[in-house]
Amino acid sequence: MSTAPIKPFKRILLTGAAGGLGKILRERIKPWADIIRLSDISPMGDAQEGEEIVQCDLSNKAAVHELMKDVDVVLHFGGISTENNFEAIMAANIQGTYNIYEAVHLAKVKRVIFASSNHVVGYYKTTDYIDASMPTRPDGMYGISKCFGESLSRYYYDRFGLETVCIRIGSSFPEPINKRMMVTYLSYNDLVELLRCAVFAPRVGHTISFGVSNNPASWWDNRYAAHLGFQAKDSSTVFAHKFPDSSDYPAADDITTIYQGGGFLLTGPQYK
Amino acid sequence: MSTAPIKPFKRILLTGAAGGLGKILRERIKPWADIIRLSDISPMGDAQEGEEIVQCDLSNKAAVHELMKDVDVVLHFGGISTENNFEAIMAANIQGTYNIYEAVHLAKVKRVIFASSNHVVGYYKTTDYIDASMPTRPDGMYGISKCFGESLSRYYYDRFGLETVCIRIGSSFPEPINKRMMVTYLSYNDLVELLRCAVFAPRVGHTISFGVSNNPASWWDNRYAAHLGFQAKDSSTVFAHKFPDSSDYPAADDITTIYQGGGFLLTGPQYK
Amino acid sequence: MSTAPIKPFKRILLTGAAGGLGKILRERIKPWADIIRLSDISPMGDAQEGEEIVQCDLSNKAAVHELMKDVDVVLHFGGISTENNFEAIMAANIQGTYNIYEAVHLAKVKRVIFASSNHVVGYYKTTDYIDASMPTRPDGMYGISKCFGESLSRYYYDRFGLETVCIRIGSSFPEPINKRMMVTYLSYNDLVELLRCAVFAPRVGHTISFGVSNNPASWWDNRYAAHLGFQAKDSSTVFAHKFPDSSDYPAADDITTIYQGGGFLLTGPQYK
Amino acid sequence: MSTAPIKPFKRILLTGAAGGLGKILRERIKPWADIIRLSDISPMGDAQEGEEIVQCDLSNKAAVHELMKDVDVVLHFGGISTENNFEAIMAANIQGTYNIYEAVHLAKVKRVIFASSNHVVGYYKTTDYIDASMPTRPDGMYGISKCFGESLSRYYYDRFGLETVCIRIGSSFPEPINKRMMVTYLSYNDLVELLRCAVFAPRVGHTISFGVSNNPASWWDNRYAAHLGFQAKDSSTVFAHKFPDSSDYPAADDITTIYQGGGFLLTGPQYK
Amino acid sequence: MSTAPIKPFKRILLTGAAGGLGKILRERIKPWADIIRLSDISPMGDAQEGEEIVQCDLSNKAAVHELMKDVDVVLHFGGISTENNFEAIMAANIQGTYNIYEAVHLAKVKRVIFASSNHVVGYYKTTDYIDASMPTRPDGMYGISKCFGESLSRYYYDRFGLETVCIRIGSSFPEPINKRMMVTYLSYNDLVELLRCAVFAPRVGHTISFGVSNNPASWWDNRYAAHLGFQAKDSSTVFAHKFPDSSDYPAADDITTIYQGGGFLLTGPQYK
Amino acid sequence: MSTAPIKPFKRILLTGAAGGLGKILRERIKPWADIIRLSDISPMGDAQEGEEIVQCDLSNKAAVHELMKDVDVVLHFGGISTENNFEAIMAANIQGTYNIYEAVHLAKVKRVIFASSNHVVGYYKTTDYIDASMPTRPDGMYGISKCFGESLSRYYYDRFGLETVCIRIGSSFPEPINKRMMVTYLSYNDLVELLRCAVFAPRVGHTISFGVSNNPASWWDNRYAAHLGFQAKDSSTVFAHKFPDSSDYPAADDITTIYQGGGFLLTGPQYK
Repeated sequence: MSTAPIKPFKRILLTGAAGGLGKILRERIKPWADIIRLSDISPMGDAQEGEEIVQCDLSNKAAVHELMKDVDVVLHFGGISTENNFEAIMAANIQGTYNIYEAVHLAKVKRVIFASSNHVVGYYKTTDYIDASMPTRPDGMYGISKCFGESLSRYYYDRFGLETVCIRIGSSFPEPINKRMMVTYLSYNDLVELLRCAVFAPRVGHTISFGVSNNPASWWDNRYAAHLGFQAKDSSTVFAHKFPDSSDYPAADDITTIYQGGGFLLTGPQYK
Repeated sequence: MSTAPIKPFKRILLTGAAGGLGKILRERIKPWADIIRLSDISPMGDAQEGEEIVQCDLSNKAAVHELMKDVDVVLHFGGISTENNFEAIMAANIQGTYNIYEAVHLAKVKRVIFASSNHVVGYYKTTDYIDASMPTRPDGMYGISKCFGESLSRYYYDRFGLETVCIRIGSSFPEPINKRMMVTYLSYNDLVELLRCAVFAPRVGHTISFGVSNNPASWWDNRYAAHLGFQAKDSSTVFAHKFPDSSDYPAADDITTIYQGGGFLLTGPQYK
Repeated sequence: MSTAPIKPFKRILLTGAAGGLGKILRERIKPWADIIRLSDISPMGDAQEGEEIVQCDLSNKAAVHELMKDVDVVLHFGGISTENNFEAIMAANIQGTYNIYEAVHLAKVKRVIFASSNHVVGYYKTTDYIDASMPTRPDGMYGISKCFGESLSRYYYDRFGLETVCIRIGSSFPEPINKRMMVTYLSYNDLVELLRCAVFAPRVGHTISFGVSNNPASWWDNRYAAHLGFQAKDSSTVFAHKFPDSSDYPAADDITTIYQGGGFLLTGPQYK
Repeated sequence: MSTAPIKPFKRILLTGAAGGLGKILRERIKPWADIIRLSDISPMGDAQEGEEIVQCDLSNKAAVHELMKDVDVVLHFGGISTENNFEAIMAANIQGTYNIYEAVHLAKVKRVIFASSNHVVGYYKTTDYIDASMPTRPDGMYGISKCFGESLSRYYYDRFGLETVCIRIGSSFPEPINKRMMVTYLSYNDLVELLRCAVFAPRVGHTISFGVSNNPASWWDNRYAAHLGFQAKDSSTVFAHKFPDSSDYPAADDITTIYQGGGFLLTGPQYK
Repeated sequence: MSTAPIKPFKRILLTGAAGGLGKILRERIKPWADIIRLSDISPMGDAQEGEEIVQCDLSNKAAVHELMKDVDVVLHFGGISTENNFEAIMAANIQGTYNIYEAVHLAKVKRVIFASSNHVVGYYKTTDYIDASMPTRPDGMYGISKCFGESLSRYYYDRFGLETVCIRIGSSFPEPINKRMMVTYLSYNDLVELLRCAVFAPRVGHTISFGVSNNPASWWDNRYAAHLGFQAKDSSTVFAHKFPDSSDYPAADDITTIYQGGGFLLTGPQYK
Repeated sequence: MSTAPIKPFKRILLTGAAGGLGKILRERIKPWADIIRLSDISPMGDAQEGEEIVQCDLSNKAAVHELMKDVDVVLHFGGISTENNFEAIMAANIQGTYNIYEAVHLAKVKRVIFASSNHVVGYYKTTDYIDASMPTRPDGMYGISKCFGESLSRYYYDRFGLETVCIRIGSSFPEPINKRMMVTYLSYNDLVELLRCAVFAPRVGHTISFGVSNNPASWWDNRYAAHLGFQAKDSSTVFAHKFPDSSDYPAADDITTIYQGGGFLLTGPQYK
């Protein structure tokens, strides 16, 4: 008779579990906790072994407080993850993230991994090389809401010692689908490894890490997250043949290639 | 028969006109425009000559759009200016400031002066010397809402060229009322002069300026606002006799003297 | 019977003595040396007491070597001082400055004051605040020729210990004639005082100093020239009434106000 | 029947094609364009398939303008590549590079790869670690002429959007021939790969990259060229046995080992 | 009947009271405390009203512990203040300062003002402009012993919260006696004012301040001591006539003018 | 008949040869010199071939001068290597290291490798990423004595050109024995390789290098030692299974995990 291995945590909460990355993580983070509590505003199917399912709107404060019960660590991937109208983003990402942190604080959860985004710095140029100490330059309402989350989590750390790792996720998809993503690509394996480092490092304080694989071209210097011990193992190089050398220089005023944020810069709903 | 002098602007909008600083500004900025449009959620008394009064809740998007009609420059001092519960701050300072910027953008107003606050950096230590390029470290929900305003205005400048001067106001009162304010004091004269520089400088892009008089002790380096041409003329030195040399060192763990934010650090309503 | 005071130097060479600033200096620097040797490609009138006149084309190597005989210090204001076609600038400012330095080196002159220009950094923005350690961003052929002079003089210092103070002169005119010059104004008195500091400081190595009065708005940080001891006494403030507060914001794409170089950016002869 | 593969560019111009690196590149860059136009002041032999040969003196403006016809990209390796007398360097590297850029601008060529040199920073110490934002410190007339090229190309980018990658080439030879080159070695393979990155990166603005293989000891930080995506694959380590561990410390005042420029520091023709 | 004014502190300890600066301070700091306890290894004359005299060798641990009884603040000016042989410096300045801090810690004294020296950075060049965050570069055994004191006091702050202001005193004499001191001069009035700021500022943590008047030429940036509120009122300018403009440039290899430490660089006893 | 290979140096002195690292080095550095002179205050057993044994107390000046005779390079690993009472540390590490340098200087030895320690920066946080230009923050008397050694060696380089490589050794043991050492681990192989680089690099000036293997998590940036050419080959990763992922976050006020110095912070003998 075999026994199940002992897992490090009792219960990890994953918000946004029905989203693109949420589905990936649902499968990969099981070894980290006896129970993964999954939450989303959308249906998530049936609970598998070692799972709890809690459908929940993050802008509902009471529901979020309920969600946090007996949780050890939170992976906060919930909310809206693309450009949208401001009120929707405010409800989901501003009120929602505030609700998460208030609940985390009251429940005495010790650490949050916050899915921030490269879009907090999308208005840096593609010829810039930046690090986490430089001012944010968001590229839309979505990016601004992530700036809010970074500010808020900084406060909860400074005020209460509640630790957060903000991960400015690049482009975490099966593979790059355009030239920009050759720079911003974060493989699923590297995403999971970075989360593992963020969850298990003995002390993180308030850390901002760029989530990106070991791609040849790079815009982001991760020096201020060096204590996490993350070492990317994948690279967009293996997809280089899909984007062969080309003479098609972008137009000099093509803002989607001038700035790191790429196509997001044009998606603001207010500018149809 | 004498004629009135020609004023530089046709119409300046001052939000928060019923607030502490709003009342001061109402009297001082008249020479800058033919008409000062005053707005607040509270009553503002009767319109004087050269004034328009528009009572208005900034979280009401339609009202804010109406407010912006024929405005040349906005001095955005509206919203909540002390620590408060999050939902109130979100409505007034986050939704409210978003409404202002959307309205400004659509009305093609060229410049906003945004009343930010030293509380966006209140968790730096009182032995730190900081400048506007360093990461924000807000000291409460109020400070976080001002970080949001700075991020938002950065976006509107990067995306649309809409200029903003964010003024991280220190302590703008008739005089310092505690030792901390000997460092953070901004006289009304210096406040008005800084606003004048911010309003009339030919180009400001997106500038962040600390609003502080020429006090002997200093936490803030204004190098990145040097193009505004602001030169403080007052100093808290004239009040030094009210805070005589003393052996009363604060306790080593007294966070209101460890951090620049001072007493704000303890005012979060959620921690009664 | 009175005797003339003893002057610090025997002979100072001033090139460009027939130019705008040359004429000013001719009158002001007499107390520094028994003899001021004046040189220019244009006529300079008759020699006054304590003067020597040597008309000379700086691109003529032999003439320049002759010019350096028995000279203690060189104030190199010669060459072309506005935008011009490249070949003219190359002859006067590149070949000419090379000739000066070779002659200085061979004649064992110990120090040169080199009239560089703010146009070596003219492509920084008017909202930037820069210092002498930051990369040059010249705004035309004239500025590029001054970058050359700064590089060349750095080499002669690193290689031979020949000291130079490069002065990036702002706008040295009787008074500011546009809003830009309110920032870049260098009064004649301050120019002379800065030159005095540069000539008499006991050790200067290779120093780059911005030449600018104590104007309210500022783009330039002179920290790396602090050892010169220059303290500007004048300010463009006294001319502020000539440029009253105005609502005439420049157009968002007006490059003469976006960049520090101002109108120079449009004067390249190749772009008529 | 097989057909030739389609190549990215129609025509690439390589200046300096008869020089040491020019000969290497002539063989390696053929896959990048249908036609490689080769230019040099010296004879280059017969044109091979896919080549055009144009013998030309770069100081001849008309000839250079002719050279640029129908060119997509320029690899500017022409001019004098070692220390020489100033007038020769001025004609070839200053007038010559100016001619190239004027012709490039008028012909609307979009990008230049400019062969700069580590000798623009040769007067940094061998114990310094520098990056491309730090001031140049050239080690001779050759280095100064390369500083000129970097300034000039910066101007053409700031003014016209004409993109340049300046490559500060280390020591690109078959193998290191002294201890200094163990640090500065750039293998031919890595040179070609770096050029490939510089030519095909979608956007480069004005980039300065150090051209150096992945050698164990290093003086140069390439952070500001990280967007190029260059990853050196070779290392001088494979030649380490040729320079065995030794007790022969250089003399404390041996300037060829104190400074990064090495032996160049003593080659100025004027100091025989 | 008049009563004596209440003084801020009960007892301040001044070590080195028989030294040059000690004698000055003995007269000036009386208003700060009811009793000034004076200590030195040399005789100090009779105690005046409000004084206690304790002759004491700082290398005597027991004596130093005795010295600290009932002390509120320590001004540590004791030890050797010029270059000397190492063992003498070690006894007085290393063992002595250790004894002071151990005694301070055990006696729960809250703050020390430590007389450090500009000689901790004496090997920076006279053309450098430095601040307190840059590495120390001591110019002799005396300077090294002051580096030790700065390290030691940093430790006591990090470990126990014991606050120190290290004052890197320039040249505090009645007036400058050579050209170097025109840069390093600290008037007695400014010294006392700086000490007053250091003693009475509500929170200082571990602060390093350069002690220098408002002289025209400057090597030292006091930004990291800005919270002290010190504003120098004197300047060496009033002595400028004693060091008239001169053509006597120092020799290029004269290390007493190359480096900030001046003549100290040659006084090491071991190099007679 | 075979002949022994010629070794680079005649004689290397290793102090501290009976210590933990001394014993390791004794075996590994033989190929570097004909004779390794071993010194320690404790017995070192019999001399092997190519060894000289000199038992010696470093606080004995005459003995240390004797020790230096005919030495080419010194590896200074002697003294006390853990926290201890101050007087013991002063004798061994302060007087002892001074004796070493005086002897080295008089004997005209050209280079010292000084075993410094990570405990010179032990009061940085475990979430900080630091380099060798940042201020020291020692974590005890041992660390302070190593700060002294770094200051002292800087002086001997600035004053006399005597070269030193200070190696801030992390945790050099057979393997990590706690989580902290997963970050600070320096394998014996990497230690020896780093020493080899430090001994044989042609020029080192005064270099400070962190001694650490290529571990996944990192606190230390070795950019200022890049010219040494050290490339770590080992990593603590191979021991990761001994410190499995765990939910045991340290307490928020556990200073042994807040600060880089770890357990050393609590070992000061004076605070039992």
